[in-house]
Amino acid sequence: VILVDGAATPLVPADDRGLAYGDGVFETMSAVDGRVPLLERHLRRMAEGAGRLGIAMPDAALWRADLARALPAQGRAVAKLVLTRGSGARGYLPTVDAAPRRIVAVDRWADRPASWWSDGIALRVCATRVGVNPALAGLKHLNRLEQVLARAEWSDASAVEGLMLDMEDRVVGGTMSNVFAVVEGALCTPPVDRAGVAGIARALIIEALGARERALTLADLSAAGELFVTNALIGAWPVATLEARRFDARAAVRAAQTAVRAAGLP
Amino acid sequence: VILVDGAATPLVPADDRGLAYGDGVFETMSAVDGRVPLLERHLRRMAEGAGRLGIAMPDAALWRADLARALPAQGRAVAKLVLTRGSGARGYLPTVDAAPRRIVAVDRWADRPASWWSDGIALRVCATRVGVNPALAGLKHLNRLEQVLARAEWSDASAVEGLMLDMEDRVVGGTMSNVFAVVEGALCTPPVDRAGVAGIARALIIEALGARERALTLADLSAAGELFVTNALIGAWPVATLEARRFDARAAVRAAQTAVRAAGLP
Repeated sequence: VILVDGAATPLVPADDRGLAYGDGVFETMSAVDGRVPLLERHLRRMAEGAGRLGIAMPDAALWRADLARALPAQGRAVAKLVLTRGSGARGYLPTVDAAPRRIVAVDRWADRPASWWSDGIALRVCATRVGVNPALAGLKHLNRLEQVLARAEWSDASAVEGLMLDMEDRVVGGTMSNVFAVVEGALCTPPVDRAGVAGIARALIIEALGARERALTLADLSAAGELFVTNALIGAWPVATLEARRFDARAAVRAAQTAVRAAGLP
Repeated sequence: VILVDGAATPLVPADDRGLAYGDGVFETMSAVDGRVPLLERHLRRMAEGAGRLGIAMPDAALWRADLARALPAQGRAVAKLVLTRGSGARGYLPTVDAAPRRIVAVDRWADRPASWWSDGIALRVCATRVGVNPALAGLKHLNRLEQVLARAEWSDASAVEGLMLDMEDRVVGGTMSNVFAVVEGALCTPPVDRAGVAGIARALIIEALGARERALTLADLSAAGELFVTNALIGAWPVATLEARRFDARAAVRAAQTAVRAAGLP
Protein backbone atom coordinates (compact mmCIF):
# COMPACT_ATOMS: atom_id res chain seq x y z
CA VAL A 1 0.00 0.00 0.00
CA ILE A 2 1.35 3.40 -0.97
CA LEU A 3 -0.22 6.76 -0.20
CA VAL A 4 1.13 9.95 -1.77
CA ASP A 5 -0.16 13.08 -0.03
CA GLY A 6 -2.95 10.93 1.32
CA ALA A 7 -4.07 9.58 -2.06
CA ALA A 8 -3.84 5.85 -2.81
CA THR A 9 -1.42 5.95 -5.72
CA PRO A 10 1.96 4.35 -6.32
CA LEU A 11 3.12 7.32 -8.43
CA VAL A 12 5.06 10.47 -7.62
CA PRO A 13 5.58 13.52 -9.89
CA ALA A 14 8.90 13.24 -11.72
CA ASP A 15 9.84 16.78 -10.70
CA ASP A 16 9.86 15.85 -7.01
CA ARG A 17 12.99 17.21 -5.35
CA GLY A 18 13.36 14.00 -3.38
CA LEU A 19 14.06 12.28 -6.69
CA ALA A 20 16.07 15.14 -8.19
CA TYR A 21 18.38 15.78 -5.23
CA GLY A 22 17.49 13.43 -2.37
CA ASP A 23 15.94 16.55 -0.86
CA GLY A 24 14.01 15.05 2.04
CA VAL A 25 13.98 12.75 5.06
CA PHE A 26 12.47 9.38 5.87
CA GLU A 27 11.57 7.00 8.68
CA THR A 28 11.42 3.21 8.58
CA MET A 29 9.40 1.62 11.33
CA SER A 30 8.04 -1.73 12.43
CA ALA A 31 4.29 -1.93 12.96
CA VAL A 32 2.32 -4.47 14.99
CA ASP A 33 -1.42 -4.97 14.66
CA GLY A 34 -1.94 -1.59 13.07
CA ARG A 35 0.18 0.31 15.57
CA VAL A 36 3.72 1.71 15.27
CA PRO A 37 5.86 1.49 18.40
CA LEU A 38 7.70 4.74 19.16
CA LEU A 39 5.76 6.63 16.49
CA GLU A 40 6.01 9.80 18.59
CA ARG A 41 9.79 9.57 18.52
CA HIS A 42 9.87 8.88 14.79
CA LEU A 43 7.67 11.89 14.03
CA ARG A 44 9.75 14.07 16.34
CA ARG A 45 12.96 13.00 14.62
CA MET A 46 11.42 13.63 11.21
CA ALA A 47 10.30 17.08 12.32
CA GLU A 48 13.81 17.86 13.55
CA GLY A 49 15.34 16.64 10.29
CA ALA A 50 12.82 18.60 8.22
CA GLY A 51 13.60 21.66 10.33
CA ARG A 52 17.32 21.35 9.67
CA LEU A 53 16.64 21.08 5.93
CA GLY A 54 14.09 23.90 5.98
CA ILE A 55 11.21 21.68 4.90
CA ALA A 56 7.80 22.32 6.50
CA MET A 57 6.75 19.26 8.54
CA PRO A 58 3.18 18.17 7.82
CA ASP A 59 0.91 17.92 10.83
CA ALA A 60 1.38 14.67 12.76
CA ALA A 61 -2.35 14.01 12.35
CA LEU A 62 -1.84 13.64 8.58
CA TRP A 63 0.86 11.00 9.04
CA ARG A 64 -1.28 9.21 11.60
CA ALA A 65 -4.31 9.23 9.30
CA ASP A 66 -2.22 7.83 6.43
CA LEU A 67 -0.85 5.08 8.67
CA ALA A 68 -4.33 4.20 9.93
CA ARG A 69 -5.43 3.67 6.32
CA ALA A 70 -2.32 1.88 5.10
CA LEU A 71 -1.44 -0.48 7.95
CA PRO A 72 -2.94 -3.97 8.20
CA ALA A 73 -5.04 -4.44 11.35
CA GLN A 74 -3.28 -7.69 12.23
CA GLY A 75 0.32 -8.82 12.29
CA ARG A 76 3.69 -7.23 11.71
CA ALA A 77 4.43 -4.87 8.82
CA VAL A 78 7.07 -2.36 7.75
CA ALA A 79 5.97 1.24 7.46
CA LYS A 80 8.05 3.85 5.70
CA LEU A 81 7.41 7.59 5.81
CA VAL A 82 9.09 9.85 3.27
CA LEU A 83 8.92 13.63 3.39
CA THR A 84 10.32 15.54 0.41
CA ARG A 85 10.52 19.24 -0.34
CA GLY A 86 7.92 18.57 -3.02
CA SER A 87 7.86 19.49 -6.68
CA GLY A 88 10.30 22.16 -7.64
CA ALA A 89 11.55 24.24 -10.49
CA ARG A 90 14.94 23.40 -11.95
CA GLY A 91 17.95 24.24 -9.81
CA TYR A 92 19.06 23.71 -6.25
CA LEU A 93 17.40 26.82 -4.80
CA PRO A 94 14.31 25.66 -2.88
CA THR A 95 11.22 27.38 -4.20
CA VAL A 96 9.48 29.33 -1.46
CA ASP A 97 6.00 28.08 -2.30
CA ALA A 98 6.88 24.39 -2.67
CA ALA A 99 4.40 22.20 -0.83
CA PRO A 100 6.23 19.35 0.88
CA ARG A 101 5.19 15.89 -0.24
CA ARG A 102 4.50 12.98 2.07
CA ILE A 103 4.70 9.35 1.04
CA VAL A 104 3.57 6.47 3.23
CA ALA A 105 4.48 2.96 2.08
CA VAL A 106 3.57 -0.21 3.94
CA ASP A 107 5.28 -3.49 3.10
CA ARG A 108 4.88 -6.95 4.47
CA TRP A 109 7.20 -7.98 7.26
CA ALA A 110 10.24 -9.95 6.14
CA ASP A 111 10.91 -12.79 8.56
CA ARG A 112 14.51 -13.17 9.68
CA PRO A 113 16.15 -16.12 11.45
CA ALA A 114 15.51 -16.11 15.21
CA SER A 115 19.19 -16.91 15.66
CA TRP A 116 20.08 -13.36 14.61
CA TRP A 117 18.50 -12.17 17.89
CA SER A 118 19.72 -15.07 20.04
CA ASP A 119 23.14 -16.07 18.69
CA GLY A 120 24.02 -12.99 16.70
CA ILE A 121 25.08 -11.98 13.23
CA ALA A 122 28.23 -11.78 11.16
CA LEU A 123 29.38 -8.19 10.68
CA ARG A 124 31.79 -7.37 7.86
CA VAL A 125 33.86 -4.23 7.37
CA CYS A 126 32.86 -2.27 4.27
CA ALA A 127 35.41 -0.59 2.02
CA THR A 128 32.97 2.22 1.21
CA ARG A 129 33.42 5.12 3.59
CA VAL A 130 30.98 7.71 4.92
CA GLY A 131 31.83 11.31 4.14
CA VAL A 132 32.04 13.63 7.13
CA ASN A 133 29.60 16.53 7.10
CA PRO A 134 28.13 18.05 10.28
CA ALA A 135 25.42 19.78 8.21
CA LEU A 136 23.86 16.41 7.38
CA ALA A 137 25.09 14.27 10.27
CA GLY A 138 22.45 12.60 12.40
CA LEU A 139 19.73 13.09 9.81
CA LYS A 140 17.87 10.23 8.18
CA HIS A 141 17.93 12.07 4.86
CA LEU A 142 17.44 10.73 1.35
CA ASN A 143 21.12 10.96 0.31
CA ARG A 144 22.02 7.34 0.91
CA LEU A 145 24.34 6.41 -1.96
CA GLU A 146 27.18 5.65 0.45
CA GLN A 147 25.01 3.05 2.18
CA VAL A 148 23.87 1.63 -1.16
CA LEU A 149 27.47 1.21 -2.35
CA ALA A 150 28.51 -0.30 0.98
CA ARG A 151 25.62 -2.78 0.98
CA ALA A 152 26.40 -3.70 -2.63
CA GLU A 153 29.85 -4.92 -1.56
CA TRP A 154 28.37 -8.33 -0.71
CA SER A 155 25.25 -10.22 -1.70
CA ASP A 156 25.86 -13.66 -0.23
CA ALA A 157 25.06 -14.94 3.27
CA SER A 158 28.60 -14.42 4.57
CA ALA A 159 27.47 -11.36 6.53
CA VAL A 160 24.18 -9.86 7.65
CA GLU A 161 25.34 -6.31 8.14
CA GLY A 162 28.30 -4.16 7.08
CA LEU A 163 30.27 -1.79 9.27
CA MET A 164 31.10 1.63 7.85
CA LEU A 165 33.95 3.93 8.83
CA ASP A 166 34.14 7.61 8.04
CA MET A 167 36.90 9.24 6.03
CA GLU A 168 38.81 9.82 9.28
CA ASP A 169 38.83 6.11 10.21
CA ARG A 170 36.18 6.47 12.87
CA VAL A 171 33.36 3.95 13.20
CA VAL A 172 30.04 5.38 11.97
CA GLY A 173 27.76 2.34 12.28
CA GLY A 174 26.21 -0.37 10.14
CA THR A 175 24.83 0.33 6.68
CA MET A 176 21.32 0.27 8.19
CA SER A 177 22.01 0.21 11.92
CA ASN A 178 23.79 1.88 14.81
CA VAL A 179 26.54 0.01 16.61
CA PHE A 180 27.16 -0.36 20.35
CA ALA A 181 30.31 -1.68 21.97
CA VAL A 182 31.38 -2.51 25.50
CA VAL A 183 34.75 -0.79 25.76
CA GLU A 184 36.71 -0.90 29.01
CA GLY A 185 33.57 -2.13 30.72
CA ALA A 186 31.39 0.77 29.53
CA LEU A 187 28.66 0.59 26.89
CA CYS A 188 29.27 3.18 24.20
CA THR A 189 28.21 4.16 20.70
CA PRO A 190 29.75 6.61 18.22
CA PRO A 191 28.47 10.19 18.27
CA VAL A 192 26.41 11.25 15.24
CA ASP A 193 27.46 14.87 14.96
CA ARG A 194 29.91 14.38 12.07
CA ALA A 195 28.38 11.38 10.26
CA GLY A 196 25.78 8.69 10.82
CA VAL A 197 22.11 8.56 11.72
CA ALA A 198 20.64 9.35 15.14
CA GLY A 199 18.72 6.09 15.37
CA ILE A 200 15.48 5.75 17.33
CA ALA A 201 16.50 2.41 18.86
CA ARG A 202 19.91 3.95 19.56
CA ALA A 203 18.33 6.80 21.53
CA LEU A 204 16.14 4.39 23.48
CA ILE A 205 19.13 2.22 24.43
CA ILE A 206 21.28 5.21 25.40
CA GLU A 207 18.51 6.31 27.76
CA ALA A 208 17.62 2.88 29.13
CA LEU A 209 21.14 1.57 29.62
CA GLY A 210 23.03 4.80 30.22
CA ALA A 211 25.29 4.24 27.24
CA ARG A 212 27.75 7.00 26.41
CA GLU A 213 28.74 8.55 23.11
CA ARG A 214 32.39 7.96 22.32
CA ALA A 215 34.47 8.06 19.15
CA LEU A 216 35.48 4.50 18.24
CA THR A 217 37.99 3.03 15.83
CA LEU A 218 37.92 -0.39 14.22
CA ALA A 219 40.65 -1.39 16.70
CA ASP A 220 38.36 -0.33 19.57
CA LEU A 221 35.65 -2.63 18.24
CA SER A 222 38.01 -5.56 17.82
CA ALA A 223 39.17 -5.05 21.40
CA ALA A 224 35.63 -4.63 22.73
CA GLY A 225 34.10 -7.17 25.11
CA GLU A 226 30.76 -7.18 23.34
CA LEU A 227 29.23 -5.70 20.21
CA PHE A 228 25.68 -5.27 18.94
CA VAL A 229 23.77 -3.39 16.24
CA THR A 230 20.39 -1.72 16.52
CA ASN A 231 17.61 -0.16 14.50
CA ALA A 232 13.90 0.46 14.85
CA LEU A 233 12.96 -2.43 12.57
CA ILE A 234 14.97 -5.20 14.18
CA GLY A 235 15.64 -3.98 17.69
CA ALA A 236 19.08 -5.26 18.71
CA TRP A 237 21.20 -8.07 17.23
CA PRO A 238 24.33 -9.37 18.92
CA VAL A 239 27.41 -9.29 16.74
CA ALA A 240 28.77 -12.86 16.80
CA THR A 241 31.69 -12.10 14.52
CA LEU A 242 33.40 -8.98 13.22
CA GLU A 243 35.49 -10.40 10.37
CA ALA A 244 37.74 -12.98 12.14
CA ARG A 245 37.02 -11.71 15.69
CA ARG A 246 34.43 -13.72 17.71
CA PHE A 247 32.33 -12.25 20.52
CA ASP A 248 30.85 -14.50 23.20
CA ALA A 249 29.52 -12.03 25.79
CA ARG A 250 25.81 -11.20 25.51
CA ALA A 251 24.95 -9.37 28.74
CA ALA A 252 24.73 -5.87 27.22
CA VAL A 253 22.70 -6.89 24.19
CA ARG A 254 20.24 -8.81 26.39
CA ALA A 255 19.69 -5.63 28.39
CA ALA A 256 19.25 -3.68 25.15
CA GLN A 257 16.79 -6.25 23.80
CA THR A 258 14.79 -6.05 27.01
CA ALA A 259 14.64 -2.26 26.68
CA VAL A 260 13.57 -2.15 23.04
CA ARG A 261 11.08 -5.00 23.47
CA ALA A 262 9.46 -3.14 26.33
CA ALA A 263 8.86 -0.38 23.78
CA GLY A 264 7.28 -2.82 21.32
CA LEU A 265 10.20 -3.47 18.95
CA PRO A 266 11.14 -7.04 17.87
CA VAL B 1 7.81 17.65 -21.53
CA ILE B 2 8.70 14.64 -19.42
CA LEU B 3 9.35 11.12 -20.66
CA VAL B 4 9.72 8.24 -18.22
CA ASP B 5 11.21 5.15 -19.85
CA GLY B 6 10.12 6.62 -23.16
CA ALA B 7 6.49 7.15 -22.16
CA ALA B 8 5.03 10.66 -22.05
CA THR B 9 4.11 10.82 -18.37
CA PRO B 10 5.09 13.19 -15.58
CA LEU B 11 4.89 10.38 -13.00
CA VAL B 12 7.46 7.99 -11.53
CA PRO B 13 6.80 4.92 -9.35
CA ALA B 14 7.12 5.84 -5.67
CA ASP B 15 9.41 2.84 -5.07
CA ASP B 16 12.06 4.23 -7.41
CA ARG B 17 15.48 4.01 -5.76
CA GLY B 18 16.36 7.44 -7.10
CA LEU B 19 13.69 8.82 -4.78
CA ALA B 20 14.42 6.42 -1.91
CA TYR B 21 18.20 6.84 -1.80
CA GLY B 22 19.31 9.22 -4.54
CA ASP B 23 20.47 6.04 -6.26
CA GLY B 24 21.27 7.36 -9.71
CA VAL B 25 23.02 9.94 -11.87
CA PHE B 26 21.90 12.86 -14.02
CA GLU B 27 22.96 15.25 -16.75
CA THR B 28 21.79 18.81 -17.31
CA MET B 29 22.38 20.16 -20.78
CA SER B 30 21.59 23.13 -22.96
CA ALA B 31 19.85 22.40 -26.25
CA VAL B 32 19.67 24.55 -29.36
CA ASP B 33 17.19 24.00 -32.19
CA GLY B 34 16.58 20.40 -31.15
CA ARG B 35 20.22 19.51 -30.74
CA VAL B 36 22.34 19.08 -27.60
CA PRO B 37 25.93 20.29 -27.85
CA LEU B 38 28.43 17.81 -26.41
CA LEU B 39 25.75 15.11 -26.07
CA GLU B 40 28.40 12.44 -26.70
CA ARG B 41 30.39 13.66 -23.72
CA HIS B 42 27.32 13.83 -21.51
CA LEU B 43 26.30 10.28 -22.37
CA ARG B 44 29.87 9.07 -21.84
CA ARG B 45 30.03 10.73 -18.41
CA MET B 46 26.64 9.25 -17.49
CA ALA B 47 27.83 5.81 -18.58
CA GLU B 48 30.96 6.17 -16.44
CA GLY B 49 28.91 7.30 -13.44
CA ALA B 50 26.42 4.48 -13.92
CA GLY B 51 29.32 2.07 -14.15
CA ARG B 52 30.80 3.26 -10.87
CA LEU B 53 27.41 2.83 -9.19
CA GLY B 54 26.79 -0.55 -10.84
CA ILE B 55 23.73 0.65 -12.76
CA ALA B 56 23.27 -0.64 -16.30
CA MET B 57 23.47 2.25 -18.77
CA PRO B 58 20.61 2.24 -21.31
CA ASP B 59 21.64 2.29 -24.92
CA ALA B 60 22.55 5.76 -26.17
CA ALA B 61 19.97 5.33 -28.93
CA LEU B 62 17.20 5.32 -26.31
CA TRP B 63 18.35 8.63 -24.83
CA ARG B 64 18.68 10.10 -28.30
CA ALA B 65 15.20 8.95 -29.28
CA ASP B 66 13.73 10.45 -26.10
CA LEU B 67 15.51 13.75 -26.75
CA ALA B 68 14.32 13.82 -30.35
CA ARG B 69 10.73 13.55 -29.11
CA ALA B 70 11.03 15.93 -26.17
CA LEU B 71 13.12 18.80 -27.53
CA PRO B 72 11.54 21.75 -29.33
CA ALA B 73 12.73 22.07 -32.93
CA GLN B 74 13.52 25.76 -32.52
CA GLY B 75 15.28 27.82 -29.89
CA ARG B 76 17.12 27.12 -26.68
CA ALA B 77 15.90 24.68 -24.04
CA VAL B 78 17.21 22.85 -20.98
CA ALA B 79 17.33 19.07 -21.18
CA LYS B 80 17.81 16.91 -18.12
CA LEU B 81 18.55 13.20 -18.21
CA VAL B 82 18.09 11.15 -15.04
CA LEU B 83 19.11 7.51 -14.72
CA THR B 84 18.07 5.67 -11.56
CA ARG B 85 18.59 2.09 -10.44
CA GLY B 86 14.83 1.68 -10.96
CA SER B 87 12.18 0.27 -8.68
CA GLY B 88 13.52 -1.74 -5.81
CA ALA B 89 12.52 -3.78 -2.85
CA ARG B 90 13.05 -2.26 0.60
CA GLY B 91 16.63 -1.96 1.80
CA TYR B 92 19.91 -0.67 0.43
CA LEU B 93 20.95 -3.89 -1.33
CA PRO B 94 20.44 -3.36 -5.07
CA THR B 95 18.14 -6.01 -6.48
CA VAL B 96 19.82 -7.97 -9.22
CA ASP B 97 16.90 -7.83 -11.62
CA ALA B 98 16.11 -4.11 -11.20
CA ALA B 99 15.57 -2.45 -14.56
CA PRO B 100 17.19 0.99 -14.54
CA ARG B 101 14.78 3.87 -15.16
CA ARG B 102 15.44 6.78 -17.48
CA ILE B 103 13.76 10.13 -17.20
CA VAL B 104 14.09 12.88 -19.79
CA ALA B 105 12.73 16.31 -18.87
CA VAL B 106 12.85 19.34 -21.12
CA ASP B 107 12.26 22.81 -19.71
CA ARG B 108 12.19 26.21 -21.33
CA TRP B 109 15.40 28.18 -21.35
CA ALA B 110 15.68 30.71 -18.54
CA ASP B 111 17.19 33.94 -19.87
CA ARG B 112 19.97 35.41 -17.77
CA PRO B 113 21.49 38.91 -17.95
CA ALA B 114 24.07 39.23 -20.73
CA SER B 115 26.28 41.05 -18.21
CA TRP B 116 26.90 37.75 -16.41
CA TRP B 117 28.91 36.65 -19.45
CA SER B 118 30.50 40.03 -20.19
CA ASP B 119 31.08 41.73 -16.84
CA GLY B 120 30.84 38.76 -14.53
CA ILE B 121 28.96 37.61 -11.47
CA ALA B 122 29.16 38.00 -7.71
CA LEU B 123 30.37 34.80 -6.04
CA ARG B 124 29.72 34.28 -2.34
CA VAL B 125 31.34 31.79 0.01
CA CYS B 126 28.88 29.24 1.36
CA ALA B 127 28.98 28.02 4.95
CA THR B 128 27.73 24.57 3.91
CA ARG B 129 30.65 22.24 3.22
CA VAL B 130 31.02 19.29 0.86
CA GLY B 131 31.85 15.98 2.49
CA VAL B 132 34.96 14.24 1.17
CA ASN B 133 34.35 10.82 -0.35
CA PRO B 134 36.43 9.40 -3.21
CA ALA B 135 33.75 6.74 -3.85
CA LEU B 136 31.32 9.42 -5.03
CA ALA B 137 33.71 12.19 -6.10
CA GLY B 138 33.46 13.36 -9.69
CA LEU B 139 30.04 11.80 -10.19
CA LYS B 140 26.95 13.81 -11.06
CA HIS B 141 24.86 11.61 -8.75
CA LEU B 142 21.49 12.30 -7.20
CA ASN B 143 22.78 12.92 -3.64
CA ARG B 144 22.78 16.71 -3.80
CA LEU B 145 21.58 17.81 -0.38
CA GLU B 146 24.84 19.63 0.30
CA GLN B 147 24.30 21.76 -2.80
CA VAL B 148 20.66 22.36 -1.88
CA LEU B 149 21.61 23.57 1.61
CA ALA B 150 24.40 25.74 0.20
CA ARG B 151 22.13 27.31 -2.39
CA ALA B 152 19.48 27.91 0.27
CA GLU B 153 21.92 30.16 2.16
CA TRP B 154 20.84 33.15 0.04
CA SER B 155 17.80 33.96 -2.07
CA ASP B 156 18.38 37.60 -2.95
CA ALA B 157 20.33 39.09 -5.87
CA SER B 158 23.48 39.70 -3.80
CA ALA B 159 25.20 36.75 -5.47
CA VAL B 160 24.65 34.59 -8.53
CA GLU B 161 26.65 31.57 -7.42
CA GLY B 162 28.03 30.19 -4.17
CA LEU B 163 31.48 28.75 -3.62
CA MET B 164 31.75 25.53 -1.64
CA LEU B 165 34.74 24.24 0.32
CA ASP B 166 35.21 20.67 1.44
CA MET B 167 35.61 19.58 5.05
CA GLU B 168 39.38 19.99 4.67
CA ASP B 169 39.11 23.67 3.60
CA ARG B 170 39.83 22.96 -0.04
CA VAL B 171 37.85 24.65 -2.78
CA VAL B 172 35.41 22.22 -4.46
CA GLY B 173 33.56 24.55 -6.85
CA GLY B 174 30.29 26.42 -7.12
CA THR B 175 26.98 24.91 -6.04
CA MET B 176 26.21 24.23 -9.71
CA SER B 177 29.52 24.97 -11.42
CA ASN B 178 33.22 24.27 -11.55
CA VAL B 179 35.65 27.02 -10.74
CA PHE B 180 38.83 28.04 -12.55
CA ALA B 181 41.52 30.38 -11.24
CA VAL B 182 44.66 31.94 -12.64
CA VAL B 183 47.21 31.22 -9.91
CA GLU B 184 50.82 32.31 -10.36
CA GLY B 185 50.08 32.86 -14.02
CA ALA B 186 48.71 29.35 -14.62
CA LEU B 187 45.07 28.44 -15.19
CA CYS B 188 43.99 25.76 -12.73
CA THR B 189 40.91 24.08 -11.32
CA PRO B 190 40.48 21.82 -8.28
CA PRO B 191 40.78 18.06 -8.83
CA VAL B 192 37.53 16.10 -8.47
CA ASP B 193 38.88 12.89 -6.99
CA ARG B 194 37.84 13.63 -3.39
CA ALA B 195 34.77 15.82 -3.90
CA GLY B 196 33.01 17.77 -6.65
CA VAL B 197 31.65 17.02 -10.09
CA ALA B 198 33.72 16.33 -13.20
CA GLY B 199 31.94 18.95 -15.30
CA ILE B 200 31.60 18.68 -19.07
CA ALA B 201 32.46 22.34 -19.65
CA ARG B 202 35.33 21.90 -17.18
CA ALA B 203 36.78 19.02 -19.22
CA LEU B 204 36.45 20.98 -22.45
CA ILE B 205 38.26 23.98 -20.98
CA ILE B 206 41.02 21.84 -19.47
CA GLU B 207 41.63 20.37 -22.91
CA ALA B 208 41.29 23.57 -24.91
CA LEU B 209 43.28 25.84 -22.61
CA GLY B 210 45.68 23.37 -21.05
CA ALA B 211 44.42 24.10 -17.55
CA ARG B 212 45.90 22.02 -14.74
CA GLU B 213 44.27 20.36 -11.76
CA ARG B 214 45.54 21.80 -8.50
CA ALA B 215 44.23 21.84 -4.95
CA LEU B 216 43.12 25.38 -4.09
CA THR B 217 42.24 27.12 -0.87
CA LEU B 218 40.02 30.14 -0.40
CA ALA B 219 43.21 32.17 0.10
CA ASP B 220 44.47 30.93 -3.28
CA LEU B 221 41.30 32.21 -4.93
CA SER B 222 41.52 35.58 -3.22
CA ALA B 223 45.11 35.90 -4.40
CA ALA B 224 44.28 34.73 -7.93
CA GLY B 225 44.62 37.05 -10.91
CA GLU B 226 41.35 35.92 -12.45
CA LEU B 227 38.45 33.69 -11.58
CA PHE B 228 35.59 32.15 -13.52
CA VAL B 229 32.91 29.48 -13.14
CA THR B 230 31.69 27.01 -15.74
CA ASN B 231 28.96 24.50 -16.48
CA ALA B 232 27.36 22.97 -19.53
CA LEU B 233 24.28 25.16 -19.27
CA ILE B 234 25.91 28.56 -19.04
CA GLY B 235 29.36 28.05 -20.47
CA ALA B 236 31.73 30.34 -18.55
CA TRP B 237 30.99 33.35 -16.39
CA PRO B 238 33.73 35.68 -15.15
CA VAL B 239 33.75 36.14 -11.39
CA ALA B 240 33.60 39.90 -10.85
CA THR B 241 33.64 39.69 -7.07
CA LEU B 242 34.41 36.99 -4.52
CA GLU B 243 32.95 38.50 -1.36
CA ALA B 244 34.90 41.80 -1.01
CA ARG B 245 37.62 40.90 -3.55
CA ARG B 246 37.22 42.39 -7.06
CA PHE B 247 38.66 40.81 -10.21
CA ASP B 248 39.35 42.91 -13.30
CA ALA B 249 41.29 40.54 -15.57
CA ARG B 250 39.22 38.70 -18.19
CA ALA B 251 41.77 37.17 -20.57
CA ALA B 252 41.41 33.58 -19.36
CA VAL B 253 37.62 33.60 -19.26
CA ARG B 254 37.45 35.05 -22.77
CA ALA B 255 39.57 32.15 -23.99
CA ALA B 256 37.31 29.74 -22.11
CA GLN B 257 34.19 31.33 -23.57
CA THR B 258 35.65 31.04 -27.07
CA ALA B 259 36.33 27.36 -26.47
CA VAL B 260 32.89 26.47 -25.09
CA ARG B 261 31.08 28.57 -27.69
CA ALA B 262 32.94 26.75 -30.42
CA ALA B 263 31.34 23.61 -28.99
CA GLY B 264 27.87 25.18 -29.07
CA LEU B 265 27.46 26.27 -25.44
CA PRO B 266 26.17 29.77 -24.56
